[in-house]
Amino acid sequence: MIKQLLLAPGPTPVPARVRLAMAQPMFHHRTPQFSALFAEVRDGLRQLFQTEEDVLVLASSGTGAMEAAVVNCFAPGDEVVVVNGGKFGERWIKLATTFGLTPIEIRVEWGRAVRVDQVAEALDAHPRARGVLVQGSETSTTAVHPIEQLAAVTRRRDTLLVVDGITAVGVYDLPMDRWGVDVLITGSQKALMLPPGLGLIALSQRAWARVEKVPQPRYYFDLTRERTNQAKNTTAYTPAISLVIGLHEALTMMREEGLANVFARHARLAAATRAAAAALELRLVAPDNPSPAVTGLYVPDAIDGSKLFAYLRDKMRVVFAGGQDHLKGKIVRIAHLGYMGAFDTITAVAALEMALRHFGHAVELGRGVGAAEAELLSALPG
Amino acid sequence: MIKQLLLAPGPTPVPARVRLAMAQPMFHHRTPQFSALFAEVRDGLRQLFQTEEDVLVLASSGTGAMEAAVVNCFAPGDEVVVVNGGKFGERWIKLATTFGLTPIEIRVEWGRAVRVDQVAEALDAHPRARGVLVQGSETSTTAVHPIEQLAAVTRRRDTLLVVDGITAVGVYDLPMDRWGVDVLITGSQKALMLPPGLGLIALSQRAWARVEKVPQPRYYFDLTRERTNQAKNTTAYTPAISLVIGLHEALTMMREEGLANVFARHARLAAATRAAAAALELRLVAPDNPSPAVTGLYVPDAIDGSKLFAYLRDKMRVVFAGGQDHLKGKIVRIAHLGYMGAFDTITAVAALEMALRHFGHAVELGRGVGAAEAELLSALPG
Repeated sequence: MIKQLLLAPGPTPVPARVRLAMAQPMFHHRTPQFSALFAEVRDGLRQLFQTEEDVLVLASSGTGAMEAAVVNCFAPGDEVVVVNGGKFGERWIKLATTFGLTPIEIRVEWGRAVRVDQVAEALDAHPRARGVLVQGSETSTTAVHPIEQLAAVTRRRDTLLVVDGITAVGVYDLPMDRWGVDVLITGSQKALMLPPGLGLIALSQRAWARVEKVPQPRYYFDLTRERTNQAKNTTAYTPAISLVIGLHEALTMMREEGLANVFARHARLAAATRAAAAALELRLVAPDNPSPAVTGLYVPDAIDGSKLFAYLRDKMRVVFAGGQDHLKGKIVRIAHLGYMGAFDTITAVAALEMALRHFGHAVELGRGVGAAEAELLSALPG
Repeated sequence: MIKQLLLAPGPTPVPARVRLAMAQPMFHHRTPQFSALFAEVRDGLRQLFQTEEDVLVLASSGTGAMEAAVVNCFAPGDEVVVVNGGKFGERWIKLATTFGLTPIEIRVEWGRAVRVDQVAEALDAHPRARGVLVQGSETSTTAVHPIEQLAAVTRRRDTLLVVDGITAVGVYDLPMDRWGVDVLITGSQKALMLPPGLGLIALSQRAWARVEKVPQPRYYFDLTRERTNQAKNTTAYTPAISLVIGLHEALTMMREEGLANVFARHARLAAATRAAAAALELRLVAPDNPSPAVTGLYVPDAIDGSKLFAYLRDKMRVVFAGGQDHLKGKIVRIAHLGYMGAFDTITAVAALEMALRHFGHAVELGRGVGAAEAELLSALPG
């Protein structure tokens, strides 16, 4: 098998259009040429985040943008409620702890969503809590948390809702301003169909008001300085120019498809994958609140999931993600976000069926694919 | 004029080979495929930095790597001697101040190099100073500081020499281990011929010993965590994959040319530009210690340098850099670093002559070019 298919929840495939745009000769960033491009990028990002605020572009991975949220919005000693339902919830805990915040941890079983009443109770018990840190989609467990409902709680209080939307923004409808999300973050290598290297972050007016009062030291991730510069269509430090050029092209593609269609496509591919899983009697990792970004499936008990994953990657050249920590070897994760179409999902299911059969699982070849086809067909125009 | 020539001291032109390497389909970073590539990148970086230590790859601009040096090597309250002879010296001051260090500032006239005795005296006066922060090449003033001689002073003391080598590494011979530089930094968009988005940093053994004792909070720029991961040919957070692929190709090109030849080429282009300047009676910004990365020239008093710069950029499509702060409008800076050849320098001088004539300066067209040709010809094999 000579063709590789990347079906991991980031990095995701980069369309040829975007790769070729990035392959143009380099140009300087302190020029009208860059500023004109960047102005259009900023407009596109506001549409993507569904906000009237500035979406700041950082030369960093998504983790850098998460750090930026923490060091700009919270002071040492601040209490913050952290939803920890996976690897990226853990990352919030580590960031909060590193920068001297006092995290109030809500532990959520991996694969489950936090319940809104858990967060409301934590805030009642800690009325001075300055923020709630959560994932819009917990990539490690393939579960989504109820952001709209959480925002309904936090916006009535002096509490910022900080959402790691790294596998949520551009995946499902997450209207920042309408819902009242205070900080929304994503990274370039997910729904945005770009290589990694850009962190994106937007703050609400009340989050900006907080930033001014937070004495935490910050320089590279000083969002106030970035905001001042980016308002003038430039950046505080040298931007990752080629990725910004790619971002311009990717945002154009998303606008051409239409954001609602992008969301519907992700939902459809996820539904088709879940239909295949049901037909193959594979259990979902997040049965109650599965993410449209990525579907997690338990592999049959008799099979070592790490070997299945490696076989798929090295022999079939179909790259899923495996499980992390206590899910390592027990699950595979099949991504839907980014530049993905119906037949990528068909391929994913077919490859999974073949690999399961290879490892001795009694699988009727084509059964899962048939279920996925039926689901995909139902969405086609008549 | 339809062809653009980028002659700024970063970003520099990206060779087609590198751009096409980066345009290949995305692949995942937690794979043997990436690790094999990254292992070769790490080897190439050690050769480039002339060190046996790990050169860590960060998804950030060069400023991010400068911040990493500060927050990993120095604790709040630490005294550090900072050589401030330009915009990037100022950046050290700002970083040191932001993170609670006590900078002892040595102000150097723009265009001059710090004198070694100034630094030695500052260290004698502040025997507890933990570090000396300096530029290997101060891009804003086109001057180089005497790194080898500074290292001879610092390595006899318990003082780390931290060198921003953003326009020095890969430009001129700066053997980190042999000279005894403790921290050496560069960015991708300079001699490395890549787009911006990677910060690179290496630490000496004694710098690493210091890191362990420094309580400064750090997460995204936690070099200890990066070192542990990168020793295993992976990264702590998602790397800027496409730029790492480009880095692999750029390092291959530099190895093919030979590092000594790369240094000689930069020196030759700089010498040719200075010869042209002399022939045109244009004053150098850094007459005593000009950088081989970039040559700064005062424009004639009667000419507004900003207009000259804009005319070159917008009408001739030859992009130099202008001056910053009090040099704004008074100088142009012509770069030599990165993917630059003899005829790029010829073009630079020709464009400058034409622009000077356009603005009414009495210039003999071809005079500067002739001087540059003579200099370049002298280096050609007989």
